[in-house]
Amino acid sequence: MNTKALYTLSSGLYVVGAKASDLYDAQVANTVVQLSSDPKLVSVCINKNNYTHELIEQGGYFSVSVLSQDAPMELIGVFGFHSGREVDKFTMVNPVYTIHGLPVLHEHCLGYLECQVLQSVDAATHTLYIGQLTDAAVYHQGEALTYAYYHEIKKGRSPKNAPTYRAEEDPTVKPAATGSYGKPAATPAVPAQAAADLQRYTCPICGYIYDPAEGDPAHDVPAGTSFTALPADWVCPVCSTYPSLFEAE
Amino acid sequence: MNTKALYTLSSGLYVVGAKASDLYDAQVANTVVQLSSDPKLVSVCINKNNYTHELIEQGGYFSVSVLSQDAPMELIGVFGFHSGREVDKFTMVNPVYTIHGLPVLHEHCLGYLECQVLQSVDAATHTLYIGQLTDAAVYHQGEALTYAYYHEIKKGRSPKNAPTYRAEEDPTVKPAATGSYGKPAATPAVPAQAAADLQRYTCPICGYIYDPAEGDPAHDVPAGTSFTALPADWVCPVCSTYPSLFEAE
Repeated sequence: MNTKALYTLSSGLYVVGAKASDLYDAQVANTVVQLSSDPKLVSVCINKNNYTHELIEQGGYFSVSVLSQDAPMELIGVFGFHSGREVDKFTMVNPVYTIHGLPVLHEHCLGYLECQVLQSVDAATHTLYIGQLTDAAVYHQGEALTYAYYHEIKKGRSPKNAPTYRAEEDPTVKPAATGSYGKPAATPAVPAQAAADLQRYTCPICGYIYDPAEGDPAHDVPAGTSFTALPADWVCPVCSTYPSLFEAE
Repeated sequence: MNTKALYTLSSGLYVVGAKASDLYDAQVANTVVQLSSDPKLVSVCINKNNYTHELIEQGGYFSVSVLSQDAPMELIGVFGFHSGREVDKFTMVNPVYTIHGLPVLHEHCLGYLECQVLQSVDAATHTLYIGQLTDAAVYHQGEALTYAYYHEIKKGRSPKNAPTYRAEEDPTVKPAATGSYGKPAATPAVPAQAAADLQRYTCPICGYIYDPAEGDPAHDVPAGTSFTALPADWVCPVCSTYPSLFEAE
């Protein structure tokens, strides 16, 4: 059987949050589904190793922030490629709070849901939570971010704890050449030295591409900075991977 | 709380099939999710009143045909707006079969999954089935049909048994004027009689729009046929609703 058929399934991309006492966490998930309209039941599937899983277990609620298509990769990186056990994600992104005090995003977001867990179902490496809607808001109209858009246009990848993790995109396998942040890959006709300076490098963990033509202005790296001239403390702006692990395209 | 936040969730559109002995059925569903990658678990949520539900209960397997964006509304109509208790859907659309003999589509389809049910979870009006992947194929690359594309571009609606049924789109409420089959709504500047001949009518059940400028060539109604001149036996090509129930745009 060709298990790549699973890649044809469509899904949105969300930030799922939880709260237990004064502890908060949130993570990217693409498994949010409305199960029934009356009552309004929603399910989400979370990896058992994740800190958000621990807090849903303790707190009994989950929140869903519906990302909009304009969500930057850096935002997805904070919630998708770091553990809440190691970093406090909400020192990097300010949340707002649902009626029961769960964290949800406001920027780059169409709205949110909050659900009380009615049932937890074992699903191998993951737990499927079924919750009843207890709070919801729409911030504004817009295009929701889908996993397809994230993967095909933003060139993002699934972390290992995601249900949709793709083993063939593992760091040990060189990824296909792609454009940076949705721009078509250019084939520069330049001398060898200039070509080296313009060489683009791909993060093996999240798929981020460092393009010298763009630099990383958000982290004070001006356009025109070659990969080898990056500051010593520079790391992948999406997932914090060290540049020594990056691979030339 | 604003429950319209549920409308911002993204999903694909699939035909979910089942088999019990020599009985077959399939229906449209937008609730297919990959739950884990190892083992490969997939869930789908089906209304308890549906014939497909009955056959999944009896047969213990479900199939998923991943619709492509070019799937015509008529195909979605067969599987989304008719009951397998009343019509044999596979006299209208020829299936192919999975390794355990479940029906799946081939045309207008990117590929299929077949899953053995491991667990059935009660979800109010619906049952959530968790299955392990037992067969899968990819027919070809292409754009998967999403619920957003079906709703916004194809102008389709959810039937009452769907988790995403929208009460405000009930036949008692006149829908907003829309284009037909994804084309922008035109505002014809024509004399009164010609305007009447060009009047478009909307099916209150599935959202199909009869446009005299296009006719219904698949059912021998040539372009230029006004709504009032339709053959006596003409019914909505998507969901078979009688034209007397249609509403002028």
